[in-house]
Amino acid sequence: MSDKQLGIPKGTRDFGPETMAKRHYILLHIRSTFEKYGFQPLETPSMEQLSVLTGKYGEEGDQLLFKILNSGDYLKKTTVEDFQAGAHNLLTKVSEKGLRYDLTVPFARYVVMHRNEITFPFKRYQMQPVWRADRPQRGRYREFFQCDADVVGTGSLLCEAEIVAMITEVFAALSIKDYSILINHRQILAGIAEAIGASGKESELAVAMDKLAKIGVENVLKELASKGFEESSLNQLLPILSKSIQWNMTDNPLEQYLSGSLAGNKGIQDLKRMFQYLEDLKLSSSQVVIDATLARGLSYYTGTIFEVVVNNADMGSVCGGGRYDDLTGIFGLPDVSGVGISFGVDRIYDVMEQLDLFPVDQLRFTDVLLISLDESCDGYALSILSKLRSNNIASELYPDKGKLKKPMGYAHKKGIPWVVLIGSEEMSSGKLSVKNMIQGSQDHYTEEDLIKFLASS
Amino acid sequence: MSDKQLGIPKGTRDFGPETMAKRHYILLHIRSTFEKYGFQPLETPSMEQLSVLTGKYGEEGDQLLFKILNSGDYLKKTTVEDFQAGAHNLLTKVSEKGLRYDLTVPFARYVVMHRNEITFPFKRYQMQPVWRADRPQRGRYREFFQCDADVVGTGSLLCEAEIVAMITEVFAALSIKDYSILINHRQILAGIAEAIGASGKESELAVAMDKLAKIGVENVLKELASKGFEESSLNQLLPILSKSIQWNMTDNPLEQYLSGSLAGNKGIQDLKRMFQYLEDLKLSSSQVVIDATLARGLSYYTGTIFEVVVNNADMGSVCGGGRYDDLTGIFGLPDVSGVGISFGVDRIYDVMEQLDLFPVDQLRFTDVLLISLDESCDGYALSILSKLRSNNIASELYPDKGKLKKPMGYAHKKGIPWVVLIGSEEMSSGKLSVKNMIQGSQDHYTEEDLIKFLASS
Repeated sequence: MSDKQLGIPKGTRDFGPETMAKRHYILLHIRSTFEKYGFQPLETPSMEQLSVLTGKYGEEGDQLLFKILNSGDYLKKTTVEDFQAGAHNLLTKVSEKGLRYDLTVPFARYVVMHRNEITFPFKRYQMQPVWRADRPQRGRYREFFQCDADVVGTGSLLCEAEIVAMITEVFAALSIKDYSILINHRQILAGIAEAIGASGKESELAVAMDKLAKIGVENVLKELASKGFEESSLNQLLPILSKSIQWNMTDNPLEQYLSGSLAGNKGIQDLKRMFQYLEDLKLSSSQVVIDATLARGLSYYTGTIFEVVVNNADMGSVCGGGRYDDLTGIFGLPDVSGVGISFGVDRIYDVMEQLDLFPVDQLRFTDVLLISLDESCDGYALSILSKLRSNNIASELYPDKGKLKKPMGYAHKKGIPWVVLIGSEEMSSGKLSVKNMIQGSQDHYTEEDLIKFLASS
Repeated sequence: MSDKQLGIPKGTRDFGPETMAKRHYILLHIRSTFEKYGFQPLETPSMEQLSVLTGKYGEEGDQLLFKILNSGDYLKKTTVEDFQAGAHNLLTKVSEKGLRYDLTVPFARYVVMHRNEITFPFKRYQMQPVWRADRPQRGRYREFFQCDADVVGTGSLLCEAEIVAMITEVFAALSIKDYSILINHRQILAGIAEAIGASGKESELAVAMDKLAKIGVENVLKELASKGFEESSLNQLLPILSKSIQWNMTDNPLEQYLSGSLAGNKGIQDLKRMFQYLEDLKLSSSQVVIDATLARGLSYYTGTIFEVVVNNADMGSVCGGGRYDDLTGIFGLPDVSGVGISFGVDRIYDVMEQLDLFPVDQLRFTDVLLISLDESCDGYALSILSKLRSNNIASELYPDKGKLKKPMGYAHKKGIPWVVLIGSEEMSSGKLSVKNMIQGSQDHYTEEDLIKFLASS
């Protein structure tokens, strides 16, 4: 195979050591927060039966599923007529499995299959790749990671408060400071539709409002007009779109705006209760912003809706979720209410790179590189290596002999902060030359002092 | 979709919370050992171009690759003639990508693609799932995890010693005590072939000897006879198969047996040097066993060969690897020597279950469950929750109200050791009822004392 042909499928990525260190750093903080809040890990297979996946993501989603050819003679169930009927018709006969498209549908499938073993409320987190045959572009990949946490089996708003608390904790751990947690409620959207005299049209309303940040107030109004919204409705909607009617905790104009709507009032009361819980949790609510125009395409949300945006970063939402009342209904188990959040690791990564937030000193692997200058020193070097490691100091012995330039370059490239030279002189004196690769200084230590020094640094 | 149709593809598995906790435990120890020894993480895409994968695993391997249908109209490049020519002929026109079959070929591809950025020697580890369309059976799955560590770009036997040290460290961390690290050398196999007068036939010899444990001495001899090995050769081989000629460090009958073979002598000298390094590393070598019949199907190994078996566990090897001199040659970059090891997480998991080695107390997630007995206590309960978490104590507040039976069952099922009841009495007295779920005892603590107590327990 010629070198030119070597490559990876478009939309996928190799993650080298530096990138991996940074990804691990993000994943570690998300995982430990999930666990601290009592969420338990779940992993589902990369492949699901196509019957589980299809029809769950709309027609476009079905197109974007990666399908796996049946093993062996995959044509054995087909006829020339099937072939001539086209790709769509042939599909069910040559493929029965597809790659996971998100973590939500496999989770729902898991809950339904294991409903008799699960103790509800069930708090699970799942951190795995998903695949979509999307057109690759900036921030959009064909293989990417999702980190989801969901509680199912309870309608308590305590869970919403917990999710806000988790977001706050993860972002604090990652040193992302300037961000907003946008919150809305499906019932507030229903209330707005009612308030503007367009009851029942909240889906069209939501789809248009979702584009507000991208296309502006004028174009949202135009789109709604084209969908048959009356001028009087649009006039009444204007203060919502222009954000002159907003949520606040004192005189709350949004509450007044929605006072005539039962649904709207339910949404307002839910969010008020959630805010009370946040206060009890001693959470500063300055990052929490009620945004009555937030809809996240509505999808399956029936209650609260969350989205996190990092300010001053040129990136869409890095985190999103909400409450749904019927996730498992698609698999025949109705009335399981749940609420969940999904962290977009790939986007959080890009934001952290952009804002230079990765702590360099926490990303290295090896603390010390030993260089044995002569084969006769190898035994001594290995004995030191063994002591370093039994003191939990990540260390290596450079395996080859020769000019010092190579091992020094190796230490530099790998970001190893300490280099210890071991030659016959060091062996006989018991004093080791220790080079600080960051400051360029050099010092001498006995074995014992070196270990003490490194264990504490 | 009816419940009956719900399921997962055969040979794949859902990993629920308990299983995941145990898997994380294993992966954590492997990962931290890899990093302590200076190996850096790499992840490659789940899909590779079929041109990268095919032809690398033999004909059988090609059959076992999971192939992904091209997106969109996957038939657009095909004709009825292609269809009629059969699945094999149609394949290249309907599928260009396959799922990764192991971590070695993607690693070789990565090294070749990035050879100008990589500083050699390159120590990388990779822990990812692989997929094989194998017939599922006990201990064999269609999706399973591999954990590989390799050093490429050096021929130094220090790397072999490091690998043995890593194996020792991982197994010690997992409390697996009774195991053997079997070691052989490709040149010893060549030497044996030479010694029995069958030079150049080491492949056939190795394939047959590999089955020794399964089929016994008699059947190995029969198989070799059928491959044209002469009776005199088989007679000379017998002491090797019956292990009456073995390695030992004093008079070493194996060394004498191979003394007439240049290759055999090279193998012996390599292993002797490796043993010297192990001694310098203060590694007890009681677990290391030179087994001149070990071959691991030879595959691409050119130097040392490793395999780990856990004694008293009914399971094949749980770990294997060796040195190869031309891994990247298949992609046009010759002469990159390397040595690697692969830990079989799924098998290690099964062995640890069988030997009951998982430490129950390290597998739980939540330390404390708070139960608020009345809505008026929620605020107080949340303030305690917030304090517990800021002290890094994994804790939850049960979200629903009602009979105590439900939250107590929840705590029991989740293995939560402490339950704190919060009612109006507790609120006014400031004394919290704390139930020890393991011993069934109950005690009273102030908030402050509770946190101190839990932080230290």
